[in-house]
Amino acid sequence: MTAAPKTNPGNFFEDFHLGQSLRHATPRTVTVGDVALYTALTGSRFALQSSDEFARTLGFARAPVDDLLVFHMVFGKSVPDVSLNAVANLGYANGRFGVPVFPGDTLSTVSKVIGLKENSSGKTGVVYVNSVGRNQRGESVLDFVRWVMVDKRDAGAPAPAPVVPELPDVVDPGGLEVPGALRMGEYDDILAGSASRWEDYAPGERIDHAGGVSIEEAEHMMAIRLYQNTAKVHFNQHAAAQNRFGRRIVYGGHIISLARAMSFNGLANACKLLAINGGRHVAPSFAGDTIYAWSEVLECRELAGREDAGALRLRTLAVKDKDCADFPGRDGNGKFDPAVVLEFDYWVLMPRR
Amino acid sequence: MTAAPKTNPGNFFEDFHLGQSLRHATPRTVTVGDVALYTALTGSRFALQSSDEFARTLGFARAPVDDLLVFHMVFGKSVPDVSLNAVANLGYANGRFGVPVFPGDTLSTVSKVIGLKENSSGKTGVVYVNSVGRNQRGESVLDFVRWVMVDKRDAGAPAPAPVVPELPDVVDPGGLEVPGALRMGEYDDILAGSASRWEDYAPGERIDHAGGVSIEEAEHMMAIRLYQNTAKVHFNQHAAAQNRFGRRIVYGGHIISLARAMSFNGLANACKLLAINGGRHVAPSFAGDTIYAWSEVLECRELAGREDAGALRLRTLAVKDKDCADFPGRDGNGKFDPAVVLEFDYWVLMPRR
Amino acid sequence: MTAAPKTNPGNFFEDFHLGQSLRHATPRTVTVGDVALYTALTGSRFALQSSDEFARTLGFARAPVDDLLVFHMVFGKSVPDVSLNAVANLGYANGRFGVPVFPGDTLSTVSKVIGLKENSSGKTGVVYVNSVGRNQRGESVLDFVRWVMVDKRDAGAPAPAPVVPELPDVVDPGGLEVPGALRMGEYDDILAGSASRWEDYAPGERIDHAGGVSIEEAEHMMAIRLYQNTAKVHFNQHAAAQNRFGRRIVYGGHIISLARAMSFNGLANACKLLAINGGRHVAPSFAGDTIYAWSEVLECRELAGREDAGALRLRTLAVKDKDCADFPGRDGNGKFDPAVVLEFDYWVLMPRR
Repeated sequence: MTAAPKTNPGNFFEDFHLGQSLRHATPRTVTVGDVALYTALTGSRFALQSSDEFARTLGFARAPVDDLLVFHMVFGKSVPDVSLNAVANLGYANGRFGVPVFPGDTLSTVSKVIGLKENSSGKTGVVYVNSVGRNQRGESVLDFVRWVMVDKRDAGAPAPAPVVPELPDVVDPGGLEVPGALRMGEYDDILAGSASRWEDYAPGERIDHAGGVSIEEAEHMMAIRLYQNTAKVHFNQHAAAQNRFGRRIVYGGHIISLARAMSFNGLANACKLLAINGGRHVAPSFAGDTIYAWSEVLECRELAGREDAGALRLRTLAVKDKDCADFPGRDGNGKFDPAVVLEFDYWVLMPRR
Repeated sequence: MTAAPKTNPGNFFEDFHLGQSLRHATPRTVTVGDVALYTALTGSRFALQSSDEFARTLGFARAPVDDLLVFHMVFGKSVPDVSLNAVANLGYANGRFGVPVFPGDTLSTVSKVIGLKENSSGKTGVVYVNSVGRNQRGESVLDFVRWVMVDKRDAGAPAPAPVVPELPDVVDPGGLEVPGALRMGEYDDILAGSASRWEDYAPGERIDHAGGVSIEEAEHMMAIRLYQNTAKVHFNQHAAAQNRFGRRIVYGGHIISLARAMSFNGLANACKLLAINGGRHVAPSFAGDTIYAWSEVLECRELAGREDAGALRLRTLAVKDKDCADFPGRDGNGKFDPAVVLEFDYWVLMPRR
Repeated sequence: MTAAPKTNPGNFFEDFHLGQSLRHATPRTVTVGDVALYTALTGSRFALQSSDEFARTLGFARAPVDDLLVFHMVFGKSVPDVSLNAVANLGYANGRFGVPVFPGDTLSTVSKVIGLKENSSGKTGVVYVNSVGRNQRGESVLDFVRWVMVDKRDAGAPAPAPVVPELPDVVDPGGLEVPGALRMGEYDDILAGSASRWEDYAPGERIDHAGGVSIEEAEHMMAIRLYQNTAKVHFNQHAAAQNRFGRRIVYGGHIISLARAMSFNGLANACKLLAINGGRHVAPSFAGDTIYAWSEVLECRELAGREDAGALRLRTLAVKDKDCADFPGRDGNGKFDPAVVLEFDYWVLMPRR
């Protein structure tokens, strides 16, 4: 009887090197089945992604797949190679959505190591990767950077020369990619669910998305399995009983999706994500938590060559077990209200008048 | 920093006026993904809706979408405009299914206010709406009336002239719409799951559907999110902890679907709903409840111009945590057994010999 | 008011006779919706079933449906006629997968009674059936034998002449059906998730699949409803409260699927099931259990006429609430570790170098 070297133990800090390219496993054809599950798991109601007919009035052949579903699938593929031994997901930046994804498209992800920095403890290090999701034609559907803290296999292994990539705090609105086919001329506000267009929003405006949704274990586990994300902390109660929370942790991306779905109430015409500037999972969420959300408009920008649509930069906060009528956020010292679980900074596309 | 007037607070009683037309948001393309979820959430097993091949033997191009899935989607769209501030869903009537829905069809809903009556308290009123769901060709797929009790925003607002529409207790079987394409000549009883056809049922006959299904929070929430129904009582445990039940309430339509799915055992050839005469959610259901069901045949009617199929009028009761071998229903005074949660009165189509 | 003979009470032991053919109800068109749910409920990540593009590089027109999803659907149809009154599912054997199933195919099942043996108690008997699932062209997609212990309706009914079919312990590898279209020449190990091919495995090798997944009630109930399996022990908590466990029992096939999905970690190139030699549900599983899995390679066989792929015979064990690093299995007396819930013996297809 031989040993079993075939089980993937995941990469440790010393397995990564600068410039390394990681082609991730399990290309994934996205289908209307995935779309239906995404709707059932998040409650998303944006018209463009819900209706082939509505999408056709805007110039698409059919309804595109929700941008966050694309994000979760592209991200999920990178987990077995990048973050199976992650101590923490530290952040992400410079996320730019590319060509829209439609049911039938097949997504795969390649990541490149763009930064490495051992921590002073000598036991862990931070790995920066640039992950790019592409469709079957090789077109980028999403390009983003994330960085994670990863255990070293051997604390005695030598540290690499530290390289920390320079990352933008905000994706330059000049570089936002708006699908060429998209035309807003026949955009129907009533079917879309809101009379408020790009011109109606102003920096500093706050919107309570009014309402909360409770999370069940079955829901967040079905979501991450749909995304083929294998991070163990979400699945295994037997092991989690020994962790500091004693519970399975909800995938942070599920909270982003719930917040985005709730943001329909106040931002129904934010019909597409253009970019992810950054995101911070301020605190973990667990089954039984009820998630509320509110958003602040950070910037309103015109888009080069487009008079029918503009970009809004939003900061959406997800909050647990607390109504958002008072917009719980940071206090004067920048410290978060303890109910806040997510701060998400992103660009959306919205039709103009 | 400005206020946020963009959040939809829902309509209050004084926001409605007679003849008002409400085009509801989020047109929805129904897909095989929705159908698979409906099967997984309800356990429905009717052959016509499960098999493209079976549907072809009856003259359809493929399997139509379950009528109750259509009902839930058409109904769900009306919630943000009609019943977000509803104190109670009081009833529905005169529900007539139109052309069958197939995967790929896009549904949208328009409601017309056909009745208004302020309650004597002056704090609430009853709103009657006629909601019509249509496909992308504008054909009616479902036309029904429902009435809800809605809060007034301002108790001092003047009452409108009371108008209460006249509604039929039972949809006239002469007006039932049977899909023209449907031909029962090759109907296969064995594949359908029952040897009993229209002629085998008689008014007064009772059928125990034998078996119960327990409800989980994740299931009923996934169902209503799939239908894009936003009624808050179903989703938010944090808020529900303060209500008189202390719990999330299961969407009444989910109980209808569970009862219909269980009715396969005894009514497997009731292959299609033709009309909803009325429905009464006698008591709320909660996660953890186990639902049983039984049916009574109320009427057996021929259908004009059809010798291959007839209509049965059924009354199906859903009962919680109690076996239906004894047919729990109303006592001599018309009072329901406390285990009954639903009484549903409807017409179904069944093949004749 | 008449009695209700229309409810299917299921068959009792004396309802079966040798040579009897049972055409089961509810033909089922398999869709990408079912595939998405299967992924969400099991976490399966095999590239061939996940990606149309990957499948095309191997000669298929698109991604085939997971073999175990086919198994569950074919099996599920037989439940109302074969095992609704089953006291126990005793075993299965000689399961051979036939032509691959693709979304859009419609499956139906016919079972033939091939053995009957009354138990000495006179109260129960064992029924052996050969169930064959076919697609809409009548091609076999799965052919297997199972045997169940069924109650007698009347203990006084005479016993039939006992007939016990001879069944192979292992499906002859010479009879394994490999899809003719399948070509491994362009098989991409990296996208598939493993560099280990057929030549790298040896009999006796053990593989810990490293990781566990917890089961929720909503998940296993959604799975069996998706398969239209009506066995009551899985659904009804109100009745289960009276059984010896006090709980709903998880469908044994759900455990097989979880173990197969976990086996990706170590067997990612086991791209297709060819046959099921046998399976034993050693102990019941319940919601709240965390399932781990490990596999042993039993045999490595060449396939006639194929130089690009070989067969591995695997024995996969599912274990609850216990890590599999120590490969919990049978002790020297053949007695199972009490944590083992499943032993599954099967042939898989794997590309060769």
